[in-house]
Amino acid sequence: MSTNDITAKDVTEEILHKDNFSRWLGIKVLEAAEGYSKIQLEVRDEMLNGLGIVHGGIPFALADSAFAFACNSRNNFSVAWDTSITFMKASKLWDILTAEAKELHNGKSTGLYIVTVTNQRNEQVALFKGTCFRMAKTVV
Amino acid sequence: MSTNDITAKDVTEEILHKDNFSRWLGIKVLEAAEGYSKIQLEVRDEMLNGLGIVHGGIPFALADSAFAFACNSRNNFSVAWDTSITFMKASKLWDILTAEAKELHNGKSTGLYIVTVTNQRNEQVALFKGTCFRMAKTVV
Amino acid sequence: MSTNDITAKDVTEEILHKDNFSRWLGIKVLEAAEGYSKIQLEVRDEMLNGLGIVHGGIPFALADSAFAFACNSRNNFSVAWDTSITFMKASKLWDILTAEAKELHNGKSTGLYIVTVTNQRNEQVALFKGTCFRMAKTVV
Amino acid sequence: MSTNDITAKDVTEEILHKDNFSRWLGIKVLEAAEGYSKIQLEVRDEMLNGLGIVHGGIPFALADSAFAFACNSRNNFSVAWDTSITFMKASKLWDILTAEAKELHNGKSTGLYIVTVTNQRNEQVALFKGTCFRMAKTVV
Repeated sequence: MSTNDITAKDVTEEILHKDNFSRWLGIKVLEAAEGYSKIQLEVRDEMLNGLGIVHGGIPFALADSAFAFACNSRNNFSVAWDTSITFMKASKLWDILTAEAKELHNGKSTGLYIVTVTNQRNEQVALFKGTCFRMAKTVV
Repeated sequence: MSTNDITAKDVTEEILHKDNFSRWLGIKVLEAAEGYSKIQLEVRDEMLNGLGIVHGGIPFALADSAFAFACNSRNNFSVAWDTSITFMKASKLWDILTAEAKELHNGKSTGLYIVTVTNQRNEQVALFKGTCFRMAKTVV
Repeated sequence: MSTNDITAKDVTEEILHKDNFSRWLGIKVLEAAEGYSKIQLEVRDEMLNGLGIVHGGIPFALADSAFAFACNSRNNFSVAWDTSITFMKASKLWDILTAEAKELHNGKSTGLYIVTVTNQRNEQVALFKGTCFRMAKTVV
Repeated sequence: MSTNDITAKDVTEEILHKDNFSRWLGIKVLEAAEGYSKIQLEVRDEMLNGLGIVHGGIPFALADSAFAFACNSRNNFSVAWDTSITFMKASKLWDILTAEAKELHNGKSTGLYIVTVTNQRNEQVALFKGTCFRMAKTVV
């Protein structure tokens, strides 16, 4: 049970509510659970890069938000430390990107998460790995 | 000499000109050379996350743009393949973030770049490493 | 079907047979298939580091071998390009470490693989991610 | 000043002395300082892989040892957490590989290091990035 009966959903909603950049990205939360999150965005014109495809910062930011939601889901304030992303497929205007974060390690001071980013045809767009560092305080 | 006397500056300006997301980020190009770029942005309110600091997607996107400019600087179309970023210091509203990309390897099909992100107090905010894959065509 | 009816098992055995370092590690192949491999080693005294636990180079080398077997399993010569490993749990003398490599992307010129390393208690010891670059030639 | 007047050299020698695997690798310490180390090995026959070049585990292990020496140089017990290595050039039998570790961040609980691996022709063989987690105890 999380601190003070605050659920993963509560923490995720609270973080997203205050998260200007995730709101700019148009992120919708599909699922939130302890050590888990599934979120989505739709590619807009402002998200394209100079080569005519989605800027790498967009799938990264989506994956990073999913990672943050999963990291902080037990109301234990956690910050990203080291992350990596491999780009497997370019994304285009109006693609729907879904990021699903899964927990591989939930340590006292650290955590490890894998996030897969897929498009609306269920093709894998990117693979993200993130480690976080847990501060000794709550989020909400 | 680059293809058709097109300089690193030409390619960088051309990419940035078409790059909606880098423009949204407010990216300014400070320097552009073969295998090198130095760019800057100012943190705006829309770039903050739910924990009250800059969303990890922002330094990543800045570094990723610097990386893209350096990768493509010889007018050889290159796409990001694997990237990683370590976050060393949180950034705040109105911080000025500068990303400097340096080339460590310039292969025929691949390239390796390190990008450092610093703030206006010259503190290192993040370290980015990126590998790219080169397509057999020009950018401009 | 692979080149010339050569199976993943054939290629793996051929590579392992010539692979001095994997033999020094005492690697045993448990399974080999297209884009997949599962291998094992037992921790010996020579593999410990100065802090009394297994040197990070050992789980990395085990994962890297599993990755190499999976990458080359279709008899398409592939070399490691960018790899990362997160260490989740220290290993000790006589631990049995198993690495299982799975393919996430099988491109013409590139490939992406995840390798999990577990111990004899089925605890996850490390998570490895590797990208490879494919040369236009066969292994065997 | 480090704990109890113990220098980076003392800690490095103490770790190396107990480090069976680094000794198997034939590692020689060229330099040791606070947050810094430079070490070397010579490629032997046992270090080759099934493709006739040096197994990726060797430059990784060398870099990982340099990283460990730099991490622990202030006599503050630190363990590797997340590491990555990009391979830029294959190595051959009898090559002399030198790893130089530099500190980018020395936090209370964490550290970030870059290690470059070069050969005897001063060609860059690999680039390693490592983060460590610091335990609240001494090494020696």
